[in-house]
Amino acid sequence: MTANIVIIGDEILLGRVADTNSGLLARELTSRGWKVGNVTTVGDSAEAIDSAIRRAMESAELTISTGGLGPTRDDITKSVLTGIFGGSPRLDPDVLANVETIFARRGLPMNDLTRSQAMVPDSCRVVPNHFGTAPGMWFEKDGKVFVALPGVPYETRGILHTQLLSMLQEHFDFADTARRAEFTVTGIPESALAEALAPFEDSLPAGCHLAYLPARGIIVLRLDSEGLDADCFSSLCDDLRRRTADWLVGNGAMDAAAVVSTLLRERGLTLATAESCTGGNIASLVTARAGASDVYAGGVVSYSNGVKEHLLGVDSTVLATEGAVSEAVARAMATGALAATGADCAVATTGIAGPGGGTADKPVGTVWIAAATANEVRTALLHLDGDRRAIIDAASSRALLLLAGMLRKHC
Amino acid sequence: MTANIVIIGDEILLGRVADTNSGLLARELTSRGWKVGNVTTVGDSAEAIDSAIRRAMESAELTISTGGLGPTRDDITKSVLTGIFGGSPRLDPDVLANVETIFARRGLPMNDLTRSQAMVPDSCRVVPNHFGTAPGMWFEKDGKVFVALPGVPYETRGILHTQLLSMLQEHFDFADTARRAEFTVTGIPESALAEALAPFEDSLPAGCHLAYLPARGIIVLRLDSEGLDADCFSSLCDDLRRRTADWLVGNGAMDAAAVVSTLLRERGLTLATAESCTGGNIASLVTARAGASDVYAGGVVSYSNGVKEHLLGVDSTVLATEGAVSEAVARAMATGALAATGADCAVATTGIAGPGGGTADKPVGTVWIAAATANEVRTALLHLDGDRRAIIDAASSRALLLLAGMLRKHC
Repeated sequence: MTANIVIIGDEILLGRVADTNSGLLARELTSRGWKVGNVTTVGDSAEAIDSAIRRAMESAELTISTGGLGPTRDDITKSVLTGIFGGSPRLDPDVLANVETIFARRGLPMNDLTRSQAMVPDSCRVVPNHFGTAPGMWFEKDGKVFVALPGVPYETRGILHTQLLSMLQEHFDFADTARRAEFTVTGIPESALAEALAPFEDSLPAGCHLAYLPARGIIVLRLDSEGLDADCFSSLCDDLRRRTADWLVGNGAMDAAAVVSTLLRERGLTLATAESCTGGNIASLVTARAGASDVYAGGVVSYSNGVKEHLLGVDSTVLATEGAVSEAVARAMATGALAATGADCAVATTGIAGPGGGTADKPVGTVWIAAATANEVRTALLHLDGDRRAIIDAASSRALLLLAGMLRKHC
Repeated sequence: MTANIVIIGDEILLGRVADTNSGLLARELTSRGWKVGNVTTVGDSAEAIDSAIRRAMESAELTISTGGLGPTRDDITKSVLTGIFGGSPRLDPDVLANVETIFARRGLPMNDLTRSQAMVPDSCRVVPNHFGTAPGMWFEKDGKVFVALPGVPYETRGILHTQLLSMLQEHFDFADTARRAEFTVTGIPESALAEALAPFEDSLPAGCHLAYLPARGIIVLRLDSEGLDADCFSSLCDDLRRRTADWLVGNGAMDAAAVVSTLLRERGLTLATAESCTGGNIASLVTARAGASDVYAGGVVSYSNGVKEHLLGVDSTVLATEGAVSEAVARAMATGALAATGADCAVATTGIAGPGGGTADKPVGTVWIAAATANEVRTALLHLDGDRRAIIDAASSRALLLLAGMLRKHC
């Protein structure tokens, strides 16, 4: 079963707001056996919305749109939808009550624009939105389903998880004959891994496919099959795990923060961070995960040397003689973070994220990372390619993976 | 002139990797007078890539794709491209030299898969990629241009800024008759702002349009015009600034971190952060910007109470009597961050980001924020809607905007 996605919004085509809804929908649908065919992003224009929805519905049993709803743009999208699916506007009392509840909770006065959100085409089933004022709408035509959702990411997430996934399950009661498994590996370039796994790929039975999904020091391997029996698929998985044993971090698709958080939780340990060039990015990645307070004690963003000295206890002589971007400082930051927070292990970064600040000796992309436990400190010198964002992301990931290697080995 | 964008990659349709390339391309093209018509995302399949590129080229003078290149997938995309544009593979010596340089710098051995990246269709002009191994390729057909770029975000960014934008400027030498201006406002809901600005919108001359681009406590207003003279457009801008004076933060489109960084830089001040529920997100937003070390001293991520006490000097009695999520603790964190880092001002957050940890008294979404300068501390209690990600993002933005209000008023 194929699903297509339509993202509506001028702000996205202007590059002003990043679309995260298509990724969310793709992830959730894929994990339930849907194949996502394509994603189309269009602006807030009636013609563009109309043609994107019609075209998406041609090649998929299910089409979901996000955006184009909300007090200032409702009219366009709703009139496009009645153009495609027929129907006339009706006032939905449940939607109106929800809008009133939300405005009362936020202490805001209602106005006519807001009240108009309760007008929905009578050709649709309302998909309730308890997270915002614009309701989701479910239409059917020629045996196909189209669902319009609002574009605010947490509303999309909320409606999807509380309403839409179960509605889809009920409507599309299909047996999922595909099997898939994912494995996270690290420490080998994609091309070398592809070479190492060429014999495995050649030996795969028909309908079975291995995909490489590389991202920042980690490669997720995805094994897909259609129509293979469970035993056969499971022995292929075992074979793949054996062949990748040297680089395998775990089953499933994980980023570096997930890898470390999982290892910490399994071992009952806590983490501290001491970040210079990554500027709080590692802390932010770890604490973005629910339940982070079980595994994360806290940390210091030591952008200035003063903060490195006063909060992490880095020796001012070492800073002066070795420089802030040095192995000695990375090491002192990691051990200093252990002492300052009482955590069981720590990661530290100090380097030059650019675009300024590079020298001949230490060009932009030079980063020292360190990872510490009570018994051991490891450091590594990175020469990272790319711009500021890429260097921050790569240094964050590599520092977490350095610790992950220590935790896997020793605990 | 219209540009369409095609994003290629299974990993994006699976929701595994977030596409940031379309936003980057959209932003850069829009600011140079292009109109981005649509973005289409397809998987690594020859048919899907072929039909997406052909369809995109139908309605645009320029089409840019990203992804589908790289050692393990080159074959599909390159054969699709020769199918559309003709040509046969040739070895490009400059591309080969670049691949060898990059592998030597990374200390990695070359293999055949990698070497194959230097094979390009002889129907294209190479767009050099000094940031990675896969070259960009520029094709022309029926007076239209198609450019294939690799998908790794920093390679896309790098090629765009060092090569492609100037190649496009040279090829499409068009006069940009559109005028546009953006203004950032905060402190008013979108529906109320739309109501307040309805008379302004009604008075706009033909070809002139006001758009609302809301994002987390900030609304960017974009005024667009086609064919209006400069004086007339500028007096419309003045009028809009007057009408929005109570909520106007500045000219241009800014997020909260940009607003605060700009204010700090103008005033020669430095910032410290003390974050509990936002977990380093504020530090990360501020330090993501180039030149952050001029305005940011550092901060503490005080996830545990121990870290709040030891690194920020929050009184353990206050923590015990008021609780970690309280006005007194938010205030003590902000002033503690000033003392610990020596910065001129500080922001602090303490709250419940969820999904766990909520109580009847302090449900998920309850966040105390504080902002401090040498002379003043302000606090605010937030009741935020949404899930963990939404609460972290909103609390980060609101804490920065609380400080922005103080800096605008007093300095």
